[in-house]
Amino acid sequence: MAQSSKVSFSMHGVGVSGGIAIGSAHLVANALVEVVHHQIPRKAVAAEIIRFEQALAHVRRDLESVREQLPANAPAELAAFINTHLMILSDKHLSEAPKAIIEQELCNAEWALKQQMHELVAQFELIEDEYLRERKQDVVQVVERIIKALLGHPSAAVRPEESAQILVAYDVSPADAIQFKHHQFAAFITDVGGATSHTAILARSLGIPSIVALHRARDLIRDGELIIVDGNHGIVIVNPDKDTLAEYRLRQEAWELEQQKLKRLKLTKAVTLDGVEVELHANIEVPSDVAKAKAVGATGIGLYRTEFLFMNRREMPDEEEQFAAYRTVAEMMKGMPVTIRTLDLGADKQMNPDAARSCTNPALGLRAIRLCLSEPQIFLTQLRAILRASHYGKIKILIPMLSSLLELRQTVSLLERAKDSLREQNIPFDDGIMLGGMIEIPAAAINAEAFARELDFLSIGTNDLIQYSLAIDRTDDAVSHLYKPSHPAVLKLIEITIKAGNKLGKPVSVCGEMAGELHFTRLLLGLGLRQFSMHPSHLLTIKRQVLQTELQSIVAMARKVMNTYDIDKIEPLLEKLNQ
Amino acid sequence: MAQSSKVSFSMHGVGVSGGIAIGSAHLVANALVEVVHHQIPRKAVAAEIIRFEQALAHVRRDLESVREQLPANAPAELAAFINTHLMILSDKHLSEAPKAIIEQELCNAEWALKQQMHELVAQFELIEDEYLRERKQDVVQVVERIIKALLGHPSAAVRPEESAQILVAYDVSPADAIQFKHHQFAAFITDVGGATSHTAILARSLGIPSIVALHRARDLIRDGELIIVDGNHGIVIVNPDKDTLAEYRLRQEAWELEQQKLKRLKLTKAVTLDGVEVELHANIEVPSDVAKAKAVGATGIGLYRTEFLFMNRREMPDEEEQFAAYRTVAEMMKGMPVTIRTLDLGADKQMNPDAARSCTNPALGLRAIRLCLSEPQIFLTQLRAILRASHYGKIKILIPMLSSLLELRQTVSLLERAKDSLREQNIPFDDGIMLGGMIEIPAAAINAEAFARELDFLSIGTNDLIQYSLAIDRTDDAVSHLYKPSHPAVLKLIEITIKAGNKLGKPVSVCGEMAGELHFTRLLLGLGLRQFSMHPSHLLTIKRQVLQTELQSIVAMARKVMNTYDIDKIEPLLEKLNQ
Repeated sequence: MAQSSKVSFSMHGVGVSGGIAIGSAHLVANALVEVVHHQIPRKAVAAEIIRFEQALAHVRRDLESVREQLPANAPAELAAFINTHLMILSDKHLSEAPKAIIEQELCNAEWALKQQMHELVAQFELIEDEYLRERKQDVVQVVERIIKALLGHPSAAVRPEESAQILVAYDVSPADAIQFKHHQFAAFITDVGGATSHTAILARSLGIPSIVALHRARDLIRDGELIIVDGNHGIVIVNPDKDTLAEYRLRQEAWELEQQKLKRLKLTKAVTLDGVEVELHANIEVPSDVAKAKAVGATGIGLYRTEFLFMNRREMPDEEEQFAAYRTVAEMMKGMPVTIRTLDLGADKQMNPDAARSCTNPALGLRAIRLCLSEPQIFLTQLRAILRASHYGKIKILIPMLSSLLELRQTVSLLERAKDSLREQNIPFDDGIMLGGMIEIPAAAINAEAFARELDFLSIGTNDLIQYSLAIDRTDDAVSHLYKPSHPAVLKLIEITIKAGNKLGKPVSVCGEMAGELHFTRLLLGLGLRQFSMHPSHLLTIKRQVLQTELQSIVAMARKVMNTYDIDKIEPLLEKLNQ
Repeated sequence: MAQSSKVSFSMHGVGVSGGIAIGSAHLVANALVEVVHHQIPRKAVAAEIIRFEQALAHVRRDLESVREQLPANAPAELAAFINTHLMILSDKHLSEAPKAIIEQELCNAEWALKQQMHELVAQFELIEDEYLRERKQDVVQVVERIIKALLGHPSAAVRPEESAQILVAYDVSPADAIQFKHHQFAAFITDVGGATSHTAILARSLGIPSIVALHRARDLIRDGELIIVDGNHGIVIVNPDKDTLAEYRLRQEAWELEQQKLKRLKLTKAVTLDGVEVELHANIEVPSDVAKAKAVGATGIGLYRTEFLFMNRREMPDEEEQFAAYRTVAEMMKGMPVTIRTLDLGADKQMNPDAARSCTNPALGLRAIRLCLSEPQIFLTQLRAILRASHYGKIKILIPMLSSLLELRQTVSLLERAKDSLREQNIPFDDGIMLGGMIEIPAAAINAEAFARELDFLSIGTNDLIQYSLAIDRTDDAVSHLYKPSHPAVLKLIEITIKAGNKLGKPVSVCGEMAGELHFTRLLLGLGLRQFSMHPSHLLTIKRQVLQTELQSIVAMARKVMNTYDIDKIEPLLEKLNQ
């Protein structure tokens, strides 16, 4: 059906960047699927290895030239991504191992490389953290480039005559994105990927709609077909009829108008109709994200994830390097609060896959504060770097994955040690630095009052809290349908935490994905939440909702939600609450 | 120090079977560690393979002869274990794969076999379920036997002249246990193992003390040294001084006297001092366990784990086979309740490792009811078998791993389908069969009232509930120290569940390990629990505690425990409660 001419159909994927785009499909081939196996004679091995090395050199030149030509206004991630790809390219697992395979198995270079890629990807799949696990796509993308070079594929050509084109790809690599950039694709849609894939991050940076995990987009959509991409709802409509097209052109205009209006809210204070002020903070991962946070008027950094400093490298960043990064953020925020979360890596997510240790359930294993307490030297280095940076702005410390008061007390004692060592060296730091804890383990939420007593603030990490409360790994396809943020038990744990903080006068924020979901804004306000931290791209939408909310009138409805046991009845109540 | 003569020292391990034994150490060598690698000439490959095959045949004869000579009073598990070992022995992964390794790597048979063993063990380590994961020891034990045969080791000789001997081994295989049986070891202590290892299961069956996970017992203890094994506290004392020995002789007598006294409680009703009756049920795994349950006067089977029917085989048990097993248990229990838990396997725990699918966090993946709902044919077969058996006794159905009401409703609808199909065939069943749910996911406990409304009874699975509430895999050495049953949040979830059931008049039981731990008996009674289900070996101890408890006088103390946030303060309160 889908293969016959002009048949209209729609596909559903995961919308990872909002907005609506209408344009013609631009399909990008996937060289990996073209790789076939063939045996080579032993005497051809040396030549095959040279062919492989030439392909590596070709890709290296390509990537370096992309990096040099980076436009000044390119999103900051792009340069970082290209560097990562260059690093992967010279990693011996990719640059050397395939040569050994060619020699041992007497096979063609493409085949050897693809085999080695599968090996590496399998190692990545053991990683628990969703973001890091997705980084296996970096390896795949680099391999894809090498194979294209081996097969003699030209770089993807873009038809310059058409005005709006939609990239339909297996996946989008950062280098692709840059090379396509002069053309300004109107949207990206891909077969694979998740909310933290490159495609998603890039699309959000570029401010264009994007839908991933469409599985068979490249099989079903033909080059040049007209498609509508509704990134808000994760819907792709192929060959739309006239009425649908007209409808979506209207929606597109409305969306764009709305985005313009939202931008005007940048400097408006987030205050409810009845005058209650709400803090809207941004989550960041690298210092360059601060610009985005400020562009939407964030009044603080509610979650600075420090893992990025530790990734894709063989050695830990030293105190100086960490201090420089933290200080930069503190200074850029000019006295607004910056909440630095200490290292949230697991034993399974070492900087390089060689070091990965097998572990049956990494999510239930040695990670975050547990790992830090078992590696006090790494932790002390980070604490010292954060403390030193605290002299240059308003920094707070946030501890991930607390499950017991014992862990908290051990942390406090290490923090004191770090402070003592700085005092001895006469290095200035903010002695009154605030210490907060992530509430993301069910036991911590249930016991939130005890944590609130001993901490200066709490921050609810909804993603992990949902995962553990429901015993569902949302990145596991077999069960992801059971991952429900609106499960009454999840809402109850959030309520318990907010109440505990409010009772003891300790600020509580939500920094998981729920904070950026419009669906939950009024419920959270109704439960007493006054601080939200989210990806900057959501901030203005949430601000508008705050501005349009009268707290008094939603409290009763929020109560009603909390007294409902049945998820099927909670959803309509949430809809109503948001009207 | 430990190596010098007569130095007294103690070691701490995990006590897996209670009691005190005093005797001389009988060390068993570990052939695996003796395996060295050597290269063989290509022309010797055929002979090496024959040597390997002869060793297999030798072990096969050995195991078959052990099976034939099984004493009539041998624990029922032993025959099953021997059969499992015979199956492993003929599995091509062990019987064929090493031959290929010998051929390819030109190495000795011992080395090839040991390499292949590591391969297999690595696969087992991906299994989430603690019990099944431990089954890798079966593979290790079979390999150990083959290697002993290859190395020409004699079967372990036992010095008949000594009266009390303590087996000090790397691990105890079932065949070892049987061969040692005529000698009646007074205790087992081993380097490896856990609460569900063969050593533990066998020791409990034989009623002798046992301590596992001593790590270096065989290095530190010398053959013939006098040792005290305190299985109640997991302590081994080597070369005790006179006073210690006298002290432990007294303790041993007291313990044995106590066991005799406990046996007299078999027919006594479990009633508190103030006249409140408590149900003490047994957990079983195979129909032959019923005898043990009845021997201690269990008034029902509170948890019949059906996984054993599905394990160590290549095909699913059909309806007839399941029906026969369930009916046997129902009939043996003569009208007393038998609670059958539906299949609690995960996608990662297939019958054979070939089928195992990789999954980042199996504990948070497709398992138990989630798997059953995604494989309705397997589930319907089990439901039909249970329903048919319900005609022959008092059977209840228990659903594991419920997280949402939706899953419950899907289950009810499948149960109705199973009933309809039986009605159509005029097959009798108990139409009023009770349906209960395991409360073992935090969300289910928090939401217990909703589940209590739609179910006939609840059963708290404390092991998983603790695991998810604290986000701790207790079988992961790196974090097992953080697994705390007395964490205030865990106690809170148990309290919520008991209260929800009591409020709605739906019976609640605890069937996880906490039910058999004296430490928690009075707290649970104080929280309103009236039904406990546990391993039969704990039942009489718990019954005596019930008999010695005045409910009225413990309620206030239980309240005090529940109002305490700090685990360090909870422990002493629990101690006091039990005095």
